[in-house]
Amino acid sequence: MKLATLRVDGGTRAVRLDGDVLVDLGYPDLGTLLARDDWAAVAAAATGTTWPVQDADLAPVVPDPSKVICVGHNYTNHIAEMGRELPDYPTLFTKFADTLVGPNDPIAKPAETDALDWEVELVVVIGKPVRRASEDEAAAAIAGFTVMNDISVRDWQFRTVEWSQGKIWDSSTPVGPYLVTPDEVGGVRPALEVTTLVDDRVMQRDDTGTLLFDPVRLVRYISTVIRLNPGDLIATGTPAGVGHARDPKVYLTGGETVVTQIAGLGRCTNRIVAES
Amino acid sequence: MKLATLRVDGGTRAVRLDGDVLVDLGYPDLGTLLARDDWAAVAAAATGTTWPVQDADLAPVVPDPSKVICVGHNYTNHIAEMGRELPDYPTLFTKFADTLVGPNDPIAKPAETDALDWEVELVVVIGKPVRRASEDEAAAAIAGFTVMNDISVRDWQFRTVEWSQGKIWDSSTPVGPYLVTPDEVGGVRPALEVTTLVDDRVMQRDDTGTLLFDPVRLVRYISTVIRLNPGDLIATGTPAGVGHARDPKVYLTGGETVVTQIAGLGRCTNRIVAES
Repeated sequence: MKLATLRVDGGTRAVRLDGDVLVDLGYPDLGTLLARDDWAAVAAAATGTTWPVQDADLAPVVPDPSKVICVGHNYTNHIAEMGRELPDYPTLFTKFADTLVGPNDPIAKPAETDALDWEVELVVVIGKPVRRASEDEAAAAIAGFTVMNDISVRDWQFRTVEWSQGKIWDSSTPVGPYLVTPDEVGGVRPALEVTTLVDDRVMQRDDTGTLLFDPVRLVRYISTVIRLNPGDLIATGTPAGVGHARDPKVYLTGGETVVTQIAGLGRCTNRIVAES
Repeated sequence: MKLATLRVDGGTRAVRLDGDVLVDLGYPDLGTLLARDDWAAVAAAATGTTWPVQDADLAPVVPDPSKVICVGHNYTNHIAEMGRELPDYPTLFTKFADTLVGPNDPIAKPAETDALDWEVELVVVIGKPVRRASEDEAAAAIAGFTVMNDISVRDWQFRTVEWSQGKIWDSSTPVGPYLVTPDEVGGVRPALEVTTLVDDRVMQRDDTGTLLFDPVRLVRYISTVIRLNPGDLIATGTPAGVGHARDPKVYLTGGETVVTQIAGLGRCTNRIVAES
């Protein structure tokens, strides 16, 4: 299944993609639906109102997750370009729900930075509460996958030793378009082409099958630390090709269209709009 | 005023401390009350049910904030003990709502660590939505102050370059007991004695007036990056005397009682319970 959160009538609705229509699932957003034990059965069976998918205005796939946890240094090529050694543990940082935007929303380039950068990421969407998950529990807790562009404000990110202030800018981070269930992408450790295009130029291209810490391992590791709730998002890290690591460096200045996509999951397409 | 969130009848209630009783304010928790523009007037005027403050079971002062933002390296003495230079910018990291516990709740020492540490902190509670706040807007956005023990799992904190995995352990971080309005503590840049005691031994003692980045400056800085919402918490950093910086290092192993207190705000008193 491909599920999403649709903006409609001044609110949002959880929907299922059926061909060229989106079917109402009877819940205000995917987070609310995922909180049900039987969300998958409910989503599969629903036969509500439909809307055409063309020109659909999609919200962040989960608009208000209790946690957005991001992983750094998880593709071998990106670790090399940043000049680091292969790590023993995943590097974790966080974002806020207020940091998220829809998969096709414009992204502001804040006036306070000249170092706005892209990072395409495979995102795990949690579908069951889980703490200190076993291998089987971790696999079963994965509702599916989606795409994030982990927009990074590099000058602020590197002002101090902690990256947060470069990673949590308001309404900066598209996530979506769909939650795609594992059965559609070969299971809970999908091997999918992951790509970033800036104005049609390929900037990042890799395979999610090369993640150092795969989705199941990440759910196990993170759930050792803190409970994961339905709707929580784990962004699994970005491959080589970010603007900050290029020579010369390339940053988003406004006017560009950035496409972050993962084969089988879909794409985020975002226009960068310079704030005055 | 001193406001809190009381656990009662299987739920919670926002309350005001009047002498030795807690007065119901008509809202389920302080976060819900603070979302009202006129929260201060509502809180001052309420005349609801009362409960004795003695043996009151207090929840985290705001149980479900949309953001918990923490500041590192903000007291001169603590910066020196960690071997760092005075910073140009505040260092920011985050916690989750699921990381918080009430001011008198037990704290588990996870089986996965032998390096559990304390950090007393002055916390700013946000009372108005604010983005890119001016000096006056930042001051006006401060609803009041409370106390946090920013419990830190040092071995996990330093596994990678990002501290999150040592800072977000489930149900690890007491916050409370009260939201104390600025008028009770000399304004929005209070100078208050801040102390940690472990089994009655003083481990940290400093003055919140010596913060490098004061509460107003922090609200301005953070709100440049992301909107702050009513109920959001900013933990302003810890002074010298953490266990990890002692020689020899001192960690919490289970069985200790840790008191983190700030003059005029109250204290968190937490028993450390070793998980098997």
